[in-house]
Amino acid sequence: MTAFDILVSINLFISSEIYTFRVINPLKINSMDNILFWLVPAASVLALCFAYYFHKQMMKESEGTPQMIRIAAAVRKGAMSYLKQQYKIVGFVFLGLVVLFSIMAYGFNVQNSWVPIAFLTGGFFSGLSGFLGMKTATYASARTANAARNSLNAGLRIAFRSGAVMGLVVVGLGLLDISFWYLLLNEVIPADALTPTHKLCIITTTMLTFGMGASTQALFARVGGGIYTKAADVGADLVGKVEAGIPEDDPRNPATIADNVGDNVGDVAGMGADLYESYCGSILATAALGAAAFIHSDDTAMQFKAVIAPMLIAAVGIILSIIGIFSVRTKENATMKDLLGSLAWGTNLSSVLIVIATFFILWLLQLDNWMWISGAVVVGLLVGVIIGRSTEYYTSQSYRPTQRLSESGKTGPATVIISGIGLGMISTAIPVIAVVIGIIASYLLAANGDFENVGMGLYGIGIAAVGMLSTLGITLATDAYGPIADNAGGNAEMSGLGAEVRKRTDALDSLGNTTAATGKGFAIGSAALTGLALLASYIEEIRIGLTRLGNTNLVFADGDSVSTANATFIDFMSYYEVNLMNPKVLSGMFIGSMMAFLFCGLTMNAVGRAAGHMVDEVRRQFREIKGILTGETEPDYERCVAISTKGAQREMVVPSLIAIVAPILTGFILGVPGVLGLLIGGLSSGFVLAIFMANAGGAWDNAKKYVEEGNLGGKGGEVHKATVVGDTVGDPFKDTSGPSLNILIKLMSMVAIVMAGLTVAWSLF
Amino acid sequence: MTAFDILVSINLFISSEIYTFRVINPLKINSMDNILFWLVPAASVLALCFAYYFHKQMMKESEGTPQMIRIAAAVRKGAMSYLKQQYKIVGFVFLGLVVLFSIMAYGFNVQNSWVPIAFLTGGFFSGLSGFLGMKTATYASARTANAARNSLNAGLRIAFRSGAVMGLVVVGLGLLDISFWYLLLNEVIPADALTPTHKLCIITTTMLTFGMGASTQALFARVGGGIYTKAADVGADLVGKVEAGIPEDDPRNPATIADNVGDNVGDVAGMGADLYESYCGSILATAALGAAAFIHSDDTAMQFKAVIAPMLIAAVGIILSIIGIFSVRTKENATMKDLLGSLAWGTNLSSVLIVIATFFILWLLQLDNWMWISGAVVVGLLVGVIIGRSTEYYTSQSYRPTQRLSESGKTGPATVIISGIGLGMISTAIPVIAVVIGIIASYLLAANGDFENVGMGLYGIGIAAVGMLSTLGITLATDAYGPIADNAGGNAEMSGLGAEVRKRTDALDSLGNTTAATGKGFAIGSAALTGLALLASYIEEIRIGLTRLGNTNLVFADGDSVSTANATFIDFMSYYEVNLMNPKVLSGMFIGSMMAFLFCGLTMNAVGRAAGHMVDEVRRQFREIKGILTGETEPDYERCVAISTKGAQREMVVPSLIAIVAPILTGFILGVPGVLGLLIGGLSSGFVLAIFMANAGGAWDNAKKYVEEGNLGGKGGEVHKATVVGDTVGDPFKDTSGPSLNILIKLMSMVAIVMAGLTVAWSLF
Repeated sequence: MTAFDILVSINLFISSEIYTFRVINPLKINSMDNILFWLVPAASVLALCFAYYFHKQMMKESEGTPQMIRIAAAVRKGAMSYLKQQYKIVGFVFLGLVVLFSIMAYGFNVQNSWVPIAFLTGGFFSGLSGFLGMKTATYASARTANAARNSLNAGLRIAFRSGAVMGLVVVGLGLLDISFWYLLLNEVIPADALTPTHKLCIITTTMLTFGMGASTQALFARVGGGIYTKAADVGADLVGKVEAGIPEDDPRNPATIADNVGDNVGDVAGMGADLYESYCGSILATAALGAAAFIHSDDTAMQFKAVIAPMLIAAVGIILSIIGIFSVRTKENATMKDLLGSLAWGTNLSSVLIVIATFFILWLLQLDNWMWISGAVVVGLLVGVIIGRSTEYYTSQSYRPTQRLSESGKTGPATVIISGIGLGMISTAIPVIAVVIGIIASYLLAANGDFENVGMGLYGIGIAAVGMLSTLGITLATDAYGPIADNAGGNAEMSGLGAEVRKRTDALDSLGNTTAATGKGFAIGSAALTGLALLASYIEEIRIGLTRLGNTNLVFADGDSVSTANATFIDFMSYYEVNLMNPKVLSGMFIGSMMAFLFCGLTMNAVGRAAGHMVDEVRRQFREIKGILTGETEPDYERCVAISTKGAQREMVVPSLIAIVAPILTGFILGVPGVLGLLIGGLSSGFVLAIFMANAGGAWDNAKKYVEEGNLGGKGGEVHKATVVGDTVGDPFKDTSGPSLNILIKLMSMVAIVMAGLTVAWSLF
Repeated sequence: MTAFDILVSINLFISSEIYTFRVINPLKINSMDNILFWLVPAASVLALCFAYYFHKQMMKESEGTPQMIRIAAAVRKGAMSYLKQQYKIVGFVFLGLVVLFSIMAYGFNVQNSWVPIAFLTGGFFSGLSGFLGMKTATYASARTANAARNSLNAGLRIAFRSGAVMGLVVVGLGLLDISFWYLLLNEVIPADALTPTHKLCIITTTMLTFGMGASTQALFARVGGGIYTKAADVGADLVGKVEAGIPEDDPRNPATIADNVGDNVGDVAGMGADLYESYCGSILATAALGAAAFIHSDDTAMQFKAVIAPMLIAAVGIILSIIGIFSVRTKENATMKDLLGSLAWGTNLSSVLIVIATFFILWLLQLDNWMWISGAVVVGLLVGVIIGRSTEYYTSQSYRPTQRLSESGKTGPATVIISGIGLGMISTAIPVIAVVIGIIASYLLAANGDFENVGMGLYGIGIAAVGMLSTLGITLATDAYGPIADNAGGNAEMSGLGAEVRKRTDALDSLGNTTAATGKGFAIGSAALTGLALLASYIEEIRIGLTRLGNTNLVFADGDSVSTANATFIDFMSYYEVNLMNPKVLSGMFIGSMMAFLFCGLTMNAVGRAAGHMVDEVRRQFREIKGILTGETEPDYERCVAISTKGAQREMVVPSLIAIVAPILTGFILGVPGVLGLLIGGLSSGFVLAIFMANAGGAWDNAKKYVEEGNLGGKGGEVHKATVVGDTVGDPFKDTSGPSLNILIKLMSMVAIVMAGLTVAWSLF
């Protein structure tokens, strides 16, 4: 019985416990909604079962030659030992935060007592998602390479199904944690908290704490993994490819195992933890908004519907994702175009079905205004598609922008960098405009066209974000199978399987890049929308914080007052003077913008430094260990793995901690207005910066590939050398700093929400 | 009689007219304040007289050998023909905008009738500042080179005094335009507009229109000049230095004249227009805030004091700048350290004196709370100094960050770029924190420690910005003399004056870079603070717009109402639902952030494209014209000048126009909340992005210089080659996109203010 089996068993056990628990403690809401809610844990268990099934299927395949097995084992060992190290450090951070939260909850009573535990489970499941995904990926790479010896199609099947394991684990664990906490808190939180509708608000905002756990874990995973993979990649490329002139993944390159380990810990484990965080974050934020939207009504039944609606959309999305995954079938002797069509068919099918299913499920739920709210899901999906298409246009070598970028290599590396930065910055326009239209449209749909219906409007924005991520099960599969194919290529190269196999794995990899564009569009768009939704949750948490402190009335400057329980979002803002002329808000915004840049700067420099160490080590090995380049002696792979591990561990702490410390410190000094400024400044700058970095990095990568495909002088020419510099610069852009920004935005909001009680109680100004 | 003489005569004539006008139409305010106001036009005339004096002095010097004269004439001709071209295009844009404003003012009555004319004078004077500064610079460069043949000290004297011409022209023309418009509008605007205190609000917000004219001109000058200079520079470097291996400014390089022309049109004319805009912008915004702060009182006398206080601080600053300029005296045979000390002495003296003088003049004015408001000037200066010091720390090769950046060149150009971007992003932290502390401190000082005293608090922020720029006369002199010394070096090189002279001009240039850091700190810090002040002016303009439309009452959602005349900032925000949960505000913020990136991306790409054309041309000349590299044939300089001119003209239009169109379009679609979101999103992202780009660019420049000073293998080594790539990328960062962002931020605000009447009258949502 493997670790995987044990974990799955534990999960199934927990799930069954939930059912028991659920049966013993009925929700006391009308029966139809009750039945519908069952769908949520049921879908999560279904996802985990299918993940287990796909995993088993994959494990049955042969891992290939002894050399292939040996290399896969080395990569697996390196990856696992890295994760172990990382969890140790993250463990310390979690320990510190749990102590802090416990003091806040038990010592000062500014938080409820479930916060520390919820925080831990979020971190645990986020880490588990990454771990299981990576475990699968490291088993799948050699198997994919081996299958690719037979046909492209066989390789695709294994890689894609293994990617599906990750996709389904993420969504399965996500909904499992959500239903578990919902049921638990529903039991333990007293119904008489202020007003009947108040209870669900407390439940949903407490659940956001596990979102913070997930975000914290995800940030460390993305930053640490991102630094690891890019230090190894840059190091391997600069000395191996550029200086020594040996191909990528050549076994003579001492950093090649580290490079492959990096793909797993960065692109797979990092992405898993990241998307677990995004998925849960969007559902939790929307549930909290649903509870908040009905806080002034006495309609607890409708409030319950609004809370479970995002969970139901996600649950249906899981089922449709599984259908989509199974619909990806290809004929033997399929061409690249067939494969691409097949993958696109799977994701498109799920997306179309989710639209229909959303209308159906929200109608079944009889949620107020269900038709227009379902429309918000359509808006979310459309925005995601537009962002994805725009990403493809700006970063694919099939279009002019990237081709022009390659051409700028004719005048050397400097013009490649200038043009790439220009391209990346310009490419922010379409996604931002799409998101803006999405914000306005989903707000107006849910608010019935009334801008003053703030509660429902914000709920609509949240629903759009949930819509984008609802089919994550399959979109993540198309995203995660890229690194698996990449690793398979590495394995093939190192095992000397010949050019044909490598060509097939490369084809799979580039196939993945194309299909992944839409998935990335969904991820980045949902981050912006979830970030907005979390702003509202922050205000909700302020309400709870004030109530906890015994402030039952908000007294305004003009002497008017309103009860804390009945105050609207706008009341809280005017009570705290959160307006655009308040220097605290303005200061917070400057700090928020700066945080996004500072964070990127720290992670960029971290990659630069860690890569520098790697370069030194690879050069040293080439110099000191005789016979590496002739293939007579094996290089010291482990030393490179150790250097990347150490570098990543050392470098990930500062950027991750500032993300946690900044909102706390801003709250202490500038109070509620400062925090809201910080969050919104960080969100607006961070979102744009993230698109810029992701697209510039992607375009540089493909500009190099365009040249390698034989254009502009092809591999080895002057233009190629110039575009390799661009690609190297783009690596930390697209794989370290850029994707981490998405998490940073949400983590800062989550920290602010969890610490709101403290901010309400004390602040300097 | 030269053009310069004629223009100065015109200015003096206008000034004397103002006096007559002034005497005929007394201000009807108590006599002491009247006398004090006289100081403003008096100081402006004084500045212009001294500028004329320094110009005459400089013109008396010998221009050197016939070859030197010939080269200086070629550069001058190229620069002038570029400016002519540029003014033609800008003229069309101004024509279009004047027509638009006229329609708004005369056709729809949503603006007052002075707007179109005020707009034109702002544009005219801003252009004139750049033109006169550049004229002086192109006459001064050969003279500086010739003087440097005798001694370093002689070279410094000419270069610095010529820089002082620019500094004094900018401040002189600025205050001239301000006093002219103040006096004119005071006559023509009826006193019975709503309330007595309302008149000064209308005057000051109308005056902001000429700020918009100045900003529009400045943006074109910075963008066009920036593209010109960097296209020529990058083109000349990439082919001349890197490919052909000939030194900088070598006469064999066809792009060398274009490169020197570029220094003049970009660094001199662009900077002149830019700082004219910053200077006037800060004074005008603060005057408008002064009027707004007293709008609810009946105290027109105190309101008048608050309006003229920033002008008075500026006027005193002019006198102290002149004293500072004269105090820069050096012994013969001075060392570099002596010269640096002398320059620093001049600027420090002015800064210390302005603090004392501000306390004195505001006491004399008997402005309410004068002591604490004077404290805001101290805050402004301190923030400027901190930003300047931090800039120096991050970008000077005397400190570790830039040295480490050079060291990253050991692993090639890619790591230089990664580390430089990292460095630039991290370097945003200190300036942002300094500005945030400055915002809070100057707000609290002026508001007597009361956060709710919004009017006075914002006025304090404005005063801090004015404080930073008050000694612009001398700080600009230390900034502008750098390009003059640089051009002198070019002239020396091309005239074959020998290494010693070149070494001296290089020393002058690097001296300028050090003293300019503080000046740049002031410029960037004041942009952030002025941007904030303009937000408040926007709201003031909304009040005027509503009044003009006949809305005498703001009726809130809850049925309460307040008269438009008496409404506070906060009232307007709640009337327009400008809060952080309004999707229009949030959308505006995303668009604002995106605008900063889009604008940078467009300008970066413009440089990339224009440089590409230059590279092609230089390569063509080397290939087709025989004997260039042996020095037998003269290259076709004019063709390169024409290419840069054409490229800059073509490329500057789109980025500049989007800056004007974005706030108008946002206003049309998203109304007042959207515009405020746009401005604040653009401000917070743009400010941080500007620091990032300026510092990354500066650090790359100096990292290369550090290597050229003989470190890490010195000139021609591998590290040098890597840092040259960094320097080339940094060129558009620090000289095109970065500095233009400062103007973009303010121009968007100015456009919004001028168009506010229209936004109030119509918007889609």
